[in-house]
Order: sequence, then C-alpha cells, then structure tokens
Amino acid sequence: MLRTHTCGDLSEANIGESVTLCGWVDSYRDHGGGLFVDLRDRYGLTQVVFNPPDTSEELIELSKTLRTEYVIQVTGNVAARPEGMANKKMSTGAIELRCTDFKLLNKSKTPPVSPSATGKDLPGEDLRLKHRYLDLRRPEVQRTLLLRDRLIKGMRDYFADHNFADIETPVLGRSTPEGARDYLVPSRVHHGTFYALPQSPQLYKQILMIAGYDRYVQLARCFRDEDLRADRQPEFTQLDVEMSFVDGDDVIGVIDGLVAKLAKEHLGIDVPTPLPRMTYDEAMERFGHDAPDLRFGMELIDCSDLAPKSDFGVFKSVVEAGGHIRAINVKNGTKQYSRRGIDGLTEFVQGLGAKGLAWFRVEEDGKLGGAIAKFFSEELLEEFKERLGTEPGDLILFSADKFAGTCRILHALRTKIAKEMQLYEPDTMNFSWVVEFPMFDYDEDTKSWTAMHHPFTAPLEEHLELLKTDPGKCRAQAYDLVINGSEAGGGTVRIHDSEVQSQVFELLGIDEQTASERFGFLLDALQYGAPPHAGIALGVDRWVMLFAKLDNIRDCIAFPKTQKAGDLMTDAPGTVDAKQLKELAIKLDM
Amino acid sequence: MLRTHTCGDLSEANIGESVTLCGWVDSYRDHGGGLFVDLRDRYGLTQVVFNPPDTSEELIELSKTLRTEYVIQVTGNVAARPEGMANKKMSTGAIELRCTDFKLLNKSKTPPVSPSATGKDLPGEDLRLKHRYLDLRRPEVQRTLLLRDRLIKGMRDYFADHNFADIETPVLGRSTPEGARDYLVPSRVHHGTFYALPQSPQLYKQILMIAGYDRYVQLARCFRDEDLRADRQPEFTQLDVEMSFVDGDDVIGVIDGLVAKLAKEHLGIDVPTPLPRMTYDEAMERFGHDAPDLRFGMELIDCSDLAPKSDFGVFKSVVEAGGHIRAINVKNGTKQYSRRGIDGLTEFVQGLGAKGLAWFRVEEDGKLGGAIAKFFSEELLEEFKERLGTEPGDLILFSADKFAGTCRILHALRTKIAKEMQLYEPDTMNFSWVVEFPMFDYDEDTKSWTAMHHPFTAPLEEHLELLKTDPGKCRAQAYDLVINGSEAGGGTVRIHDSEVQSQVFELLGIDEQTASERFGFLLDALQYGAPPHAGIALGVDRWVMLFAKLDNIRDCIAFPKTQKAGDLMTDAPGTVDAKQLKELAIKLDM
Repeated sequence: MLRTHTCGDLSEANIGESVTLCGWVDSYRDHGGGLFVDLRDRYGLTQVVFNPPDTSEELIELSKTLRTEYVIQVTGNVAARPEGMANKKMSTGAIELRCTDFKLLNKSKTPPVSPSATGKDLPGEDLRLKHRYLDLRRPEVQRTLLLRDRLIKGMRDYFADHNFADIETPVLGRSTPEGARDYLVPSRVHHGTFYALPQSPQLYKQILMIAGYDRYVQLARCFRDEDLRADRQPEFTQLDVEMSFVDGDDVIGVIDGLVAKLAKEHLGIDVPTPLPRMTYDEAMERFGHDAPDLRFGMELIDCSDLAPKSDFGVFKSVVEAGGHIRAINVKNGTKQYSRRGIDGLTEFVQGLGAKGLAWFRVEEDGKLGGAIAKFFSEELLEEFKERLGTEPGDLILFSADKFAGTCRILHALRTKIAKEMQLYEPDTMNFSWVVEFPMFDYDEDTKSWTAMHHPFTAPLEEHLELLKTDPGKCRAQAYDLVINGSEAGGGTVRIHDSEVQSQVFELLGIDEQTASERFGFLLDALQYGAPPHAGIALGVDRWVMLFAKLDNIRDCIAFPKTQKAGDLMTDAPGTVDAKQLKELAIKLDM
Repeated sequence: MLRTHTCGDLSEANIGESVTLCGWVDSYRDHGGGLFVDLRDRYGLTQVVFNPPDTSEELIELSKTLRTEYVIQVTGNVAARPEGMANKKMSTGAIELRCTDFKLLNKSKTPPVSPSATGKDLPGEDLRLKHRYLDLRRPEVQRTLLLRDRLIKGMRDYFADHNFADIETPVLGRSTPEGARDYLVPSRVHHGTFYALPQSPQLYKQILMIAGYDRYVQLARCFRDEDLRADRQPEFTQLDVEMSFVDGDDVIGVIDGLVAKLAKEHLGIDVPTPLPRMTYDEAMERFGHDAPDLRFGMELIDCSDLAPKSDFGVFKSVVEAGGHIRAINVKNGTKQYSRRGIDGLTEFVQGLGAKGLAWFRVEEDGKLGGAIAKFFSEELLEEFKERLGTEPGDLILFSADKFAGTCRILHALRTKIAKEMQLYEPDTMNFSWVVEFPMFDYDEDTKSWTAMHHPFTAPLEEHLELLKTDPGKCRAQAYDLVINGSEAGGGTVRIHDSEVQSQVFELLGIDEQTASERFGFLLDALQYGAPPHAGIALGVDRWVMLFAKLDNIRDCIAFPKTQKAGDLMTDAPGTVDAKQLKELAIKLDM
C-alpha cells in the first residue's frame, strides 16, 4: 500500500510515530515559514505541516507548488498540535503530521465544482452532474453514499439472518404488465424482437416461490421509461422480497423487524413494533391520502351532513350532486395565515384544480368569521364549532368536491401547512402500514376496471364473492409501508389459485390469448403446485433519501439521470453507428 | 405462518410434539392401510404417514387423492420410525410425522419435468428451460443456487469487513470500449440516441476512485451481445472491485484473502496464501496458455534447437521459417493411446487446424519408436530422450508451428489428455495468478496494435520507455486469477497519468476526437487529481460453476438464456407493438 494510515486514523495515540498518508489537498495556508495543508480522503482530514526542522528547505519549496485537489503521498512525524491549536471538531484535531518527505502523485486543474462548496456556493445541479467525479468528492455526498452502502448491507444481513436466499433474476426479459412503459432492447439474433428491461422481478419471484425457494430476496435494478418526476429515476433499486406459506401479516412482521433494526442502527431510534396499521379506507377518511403523514394531526373532518343547512350555494350544490364537504382545522393557523396568507392558499388549491377555498377564522371570542360566515345561522355555526373542535386562533379550510377531490386538495393543504408551520421536528421518523387497498380502480373514460396493484394480487378471502357482485368494494390483501408520508414499499399476497387468477383477468378485460401471450408461463406454473405466497418491494433510493433527510432522490444515487433521463457526465444516451443499427435490423424513424 | 417447522427441521428431539409442515408431495406409497408421503421443501424431506389411529378414515380417504407435486399443509405428531425403518441418509430419517389433520393447498398437473429425475431420466435441457419452475425444484439445482447465495454473501461480507463501499453504477449508460458488442436501448426522450448496457462498470469505478471513494465493490450485472459459447451468457454477474493508493500486489493480496476464506468456508480446504504467481511469458512457455491448469504437470518442452538436426522435413522447414518445435511428454501415455488412440489425437489436432501430429512412443527398452524415428540419428534420439525425460511407456507429442500455434495445439492436447487419463482428482482445486500480460496484441491484418486488456491498463513502470521503442515487448501491470485452468478473474493497475493515457491511445490509433467522444469524461476526470488506483473483476457465474463442480454455466444461473440468447420460459425476446416502436422513433429494417 502507498500509505500506512488513512486521513481519519491518527490521534494522540499515534504521537511520535512516523506514518505515511495519501490524499487530496483540501485546503492550504502559507504561514510564511512553511505550509499547512488539510489532507483529505474518504475517512477524514489530517493537518500536514511543511516546516523546518522536519521538512527540508527543498521540500518546503516544492510544497509551495501544491494547490487544492492535488494528490500527494506524505510521510512525517505525528505530533501534538501547539498549545491552543487543537481542533475538537476534527477526529484528528489533536495532532498534526510534520512532513519529512512527500511525493506529488497527481496534479489537478482548478476544479469547476469545489468539494468544499456548500449552501449558496454550491454550483447548479447541471454543472455538478456534468463533473460528477468532483461533486462526488463533497463530504455530504460521500456521507450519503456510505450511508446507502451500510443500509444496503444492513438489509442484506437481515434477510440472510432470516433464511432468505439472494437469487438474481434477469435484466434482459420480457415485457411485464406493470402498467408503465418498458425500456426495450432490440435482439441481434432474433431480428424484429426485443427484450424488455424489468419494471420489477414480480413474475420471476413468483416463479421462484412455485419452484420451492421459500424465501427470496434481491436488491434488484428496475426500469421504467416514464416521464420523470422529481423523485423518480429511469432506473431504480428495489429491495425485492417473496415468501411462501405465509399471509400478509407474516410479510409485514418481517419488514417491521427490518425497520426496527435499521432505525436503531442508523438513526439511533427505538421504533416499537408491530408498526401501527390502518386500512386504506380509514387513511382516505382521516388523511385524504393512501400514504398519510402521521408526524402531525390535522385530520380531515367530514361536514357533508351539516354544510347543506347553510345558504352557501357551493356547499349545497356539491352535496346535492353527491359530493362531500370536508375540512381541516389548522390549529393557531390565523397567526401563520393572515388574509394575504389565505389568498396564497387559495391560489395554491386553484393551481390544483379547485375552484376556490372556503374558510373560517376563529376569532378571539371563539366566533367563526370570514366571508362565508354570513350564509350560516348562529345555530349552525355552533354545530360547526363543535364538529371541528375550534379554539380561538384556529383556521378552518374547506374542500367541496367529489370524495376523491376533497382528498386530493386537503391532503395537499395539510402537507404544505405542516411544513410551513413546522408542525414536526425535522428528525421525526414515522413508520406505519396502510392495508386492504381496493383491488380495482374504475376508469370512467374506458368504463373498465384496472388493477390497483397488479393483476396477481389476491383479494381478501372474505371478499372473494365481491369479485362477481361488486368489484369496486373488493379489498385486496395489499399493504404499503409509509415513512413520513412517503410510500416506502408495497406488497401483496399473490393469487396462487389459477381459477381466481382467471376471474381477475376476466374482470380486468384481459382475455385468454392476451394473458397467455404476456404471462402464460406464470399461468402454466400456477398449475403445477403453487404454494400460497406473498411479498413486498421496498424502494431503496427512497429509503436512503428518508434516512439521510434529503429531499432529492438524485442526491442518493452515485450516478443519477436528469429529469430528461440523461447522464450529463457521460452524455448518455448517445448516437450509434449505422452498422450497429443494421446488425439489429432497425433504423431510425424520425 | 402456515407451518411450525420446515421439512428439514424435525429430528428425534421433536418426538412427541404436534407440528405443522407445508410442502410438496415428493413421492407417495400406498401401503394398504394408509399412505406414506415424502413431503419436500427447500430444507429437506419429511416422511408423513396417513394411518390410523392418528389419521381419521375420512382424511385417509382424502390422502389417497394426493399425487406428486401437490402442495399440502399437514399437522401431526412427531414419532420415532418403527424399529429398523430409520433412514440415516435423511436428516429427518429417524422420525415420521403421523398426520392428524391436513389441507390440500394446491393441486398439480403431472409435471413434464420431474424434480426427482436424475442422470438419464433427466429431460433435455430445452424442455427443462421451458419449464424452469419445475427444473428449479430439482435438489441439485437448489443446492447450486443456494451455494451461489452463500458464496455471494461471503464475498460481500469479506469486502465489507475490509472497508469497501458497495456502490451501484448505472445499467443505462454509454457505450464503453471493451471490444465486444453492446446491447442498445433506444431513448424515447432523445430520439435517435441510445443507451448501452454496460459490458463492465470499468469507467464508473475509475470515476469513483477519482472521486475519492477509496475502496469500491459491486456485484454488477454486465452485458455482452456476443455469439455465445457454452460458458458465456448475454448477461452475467461480475464481482467488481477497485482500490486507490495501491499497486497490483495489494489487489492480489485482497483477492488471495477472499480465495482462502471462500475455499475454507465452502469447500473445506485450506489454501495457502500468497497464491503462486507466474508471468504470462512463463505460462506460455511452460503450459502454452495464459490460464494454465496446474492440477497436473505435462509441461511443454521446446525442442526447436534439436529438431532441425533430424532429416524430418516438417521440423526443419518450420524452424527455418522462424517457428517452434515443442512437445509434451504424456507419462505412461502408450497404455491409454494405442495406435488407434494416436489417430484420434491426430484428428483432434487437425480439427484445430494442425497439419498433423508427430509423435514418439517410448518402447519397453527405452528406445524412441514411431513413424518419424527413422529421420533421427541414434545420437539425436538420445538427445531427445534426455530433453524430454523419457521413460518406457511414455508418449511424446509434437507441435511444429509458429510459437502461438504450438501453444494452442499443445494446450488443447494437454487439457484433453489430462481429462481422459484422469491425471487429477475431481475434487482438486488449484488457484494461481498469471501476471505481467503484454500491453498490446498486434493485429497482422490491420497492421495495428490493440489493447490486450483495455486501454486504461498501466504498463510496468520499468517498461514505460518500451511504449515508444518496442510496444510488443511492453508488459502490463495486469493479473489474472486462474482456477483449475479457467480464468476466474482479471484486473490491472490503471493509468492515472493523463500523459501516459494519451500515449497509449496514440499507440492504439485512437485519435483525440474519438477518445473524447467515447470516454472524454474519464480523460477530463484524470485532470482533476486522479489517485493511483487498481482493480479487478471476478466472474461470479464461473466461480459458482467451479465451486459447485459443474460443467455448464447455465446450471449456475436461476434463469439462464440459451446459446441463442433466448429465454425459453418467458419466450424472450418477443415482438412488440408498432406503437412502442413509434414512440422510440425506430422501425424494423429486415
């Protein structure tokens, strides 16, 4: 090795030793007689001093050519820093290395992205992505990727300890029915055909259960060619799990244990298990969202029964049309949101498609005030006060819409306001389950049912009949893990009965030929002794983001793509030779 | 859980307990009164007895409908098997489970591939790959995939223990200069451009070193769209490693430790380290191959100085043309290879492009006999005897060709004969290194140099000058791990000096524009403080094959592709909709 220690190793225990370090010049200060350099590697910083008598005049001269990001190998004596010069913030802050010899291993041009830049000095993301090799030197990015390494190791160890077998499934596969667009790979051997990159290893892991592997785990790369949102990447990593001879509770129990372990190891917090669960229906009632943020309250309150008693036309007509009037009570909200603040919230909901925002403010005397109050009798206002549990200073915000619309608007308001009013500590971590999702969504446009998860999801056993009589009411053996209002994973019990599978396909309008073409091998496999099985997939990038308290998924990935699915460093995707296309029997059609 | 134990758990310690198992009916025997079933899961087999008094008449009747591969859940009492009925070969062979209740979880059609089939009863590979969910039930396949799981876990743990960070690199990338054909993925967002699936994460791991990650490891999926040989797959898994501030010896030392650990844990053998090393030149001299099989001797012996003294025209003319006469001494080979046997070897080498096979047999009196002996003087024969170390019964086989030709022919003969004569125990495992490979191959057709490894490989420091004066003699800081005559991994020290990198590109005829287009980001990165770094990649599929003593790499992969790169189970690659192609702005060109 070119070094005896790393830049994070040395402490007072090493004083008097001669050691050799390698690293990057993080900063340098010329103090007249000689140079002070903070030498950096992945493990830390060590102060190196180029001063007589340890350093020769010749080496001192040479040291003065050093610039930031130069790479050096330096040998010297570990010494205590002079009285009063110790730096308690650095693990190596009690010592310095007095250079006796050094070698320049490599120079550096002036970096366009400085590894020590933070906050406002940080260059724009595009420049950082283009020079990702420099951006990756920033301590914050290194901390995140090393946390990612340890989280992944923790996940792997946990599943190995619980007898799961890590089994690799193909990347070059066949289109799976996950709903999103596939990335395609033209075949050179079979002209006119294509592989698809997996959106998930769903079918393969079910096959592995049918094949008797009992407990499967894989950190699987998955691919979706979708229009990208801030928290999506064209390729992402999924902790993929499947178990045989279990029900959903067993899967939830295994993941509860994983959550408790990782929260303890990486966040230092004790998470009591079993984690709390609520049904999908309850989540929509109370929070208007299937991944409710439970770090704060501000639950949704239905006033659909009271509202039509007022003379407020909007409330009356919405309820008459079968809609709902729901509200949130922003405790002490009038301080945060003045009249102008409420205008801002109104614009916000209008941006989401609402026509406007009805509201009450609770005056100091406890009365409900605001533009709509005049449409309400005193008696009715009292009923609202009781229903909403108002206190002076509260702000009441209404949504009048179809049920789904009120969910969407009030969830968005609730999330925005909690952030603006800082209703939770930034370090709070809240883990919970939402269970019993609907089996199907109804698409009004096509007048047809679609699978809410995927078509292999088993209904609740007591809802099997509803498949025939009322599919909209049929609930699935499905469960989502929610962390701080983000879906951090989701799974289902799978159908292992080929008759139930056929029934579900029929409901989804997937005819026999289509089913056979798309996943005939799974249907075949189900006929040869499929065990009851269930599984889950956790979004690893999302977990890292939540555990690292970051907002941007690109900060959790070593080489992320932009929102246009490009890699600014390598300039991928790129053009290719005509010869390559000819071999693949395709041509451009632009 | 639907069970209290697995089918591999129960022993005499459980006698008297009531337990519940789940699994597949591996076999059943009706012994008149009731049924005996061997119930199977991943963990083992347990004998289940459906007999009075434990089992009710009704359940006994029901049990008679069971067939192989039916899936059941069975509750019963653990009991000692009757006197003399214990089966010591089974871990559960001392007990049986006397059924008190059972439930049919799923039926099975008669499987076209029986999980218990072995040897000649095993259906052809195509049928097994089509019904891979059944083939994967075979205990041998399960053992291999579970060995793979444990080997991979052992690799990961080893590198984590040595401070390596597991960092994921992109699958959707840009074409890298590895020499093989890339799989391409058309971009929907940037019409006319393509991602390439990585042939290796080579450039990314170098970027990670430049970014200061110091020690990187990844089990990376890699892709090569090549014509497939028996031991190649279009996608394969590579244990990918890179280290900073090290030289090649350090990388070799880390892998030595890995070999020792895995050999001990999974094969139960002590492998002394450091593993033996020889240079490429020595390997070609002694064994004619850069991945020599050291489980046996039979080294190549050069007779180019002696051979022209004979009157045998072939020998004379080959040496005159600058070629070599080399031989192997097959000890006791005359017993194995009669005259007809030698004809077989002759055909074998002719199949490899040799004109013929010159040979001596060593008679009982020690004299060299055979068709060519008459061209040799007695004195010359004595010289050959001494050179070749002959004893009665030996068979001497010659190759007369250019040096590379003799290597190819004699390596093939040596390998074939060792197998046929069983010159090593099947359980022998031999690990060694071949180091100092040539930097460049010379392509006679194009009169140009190509990189033997890849263009980022550093020459030996003492050979830097040879880059200018005699590239063919320039040796690289490159090292291959060889297991039983198979290349099981290979790595190099990388160039971290951008001037040396330019020199190598120039030699390879890669002009500045091409270099910049293909890997400009690496060249840029090298300018910003690149540390000395080196790495290696190990072929995980190959390791599993060697550790599992298998011959076919497809047996080491859960869902392998055929030699035509197809998946017979999912029928990938497949056709896609015209709409999908339109979105990608490509069309078929057949």
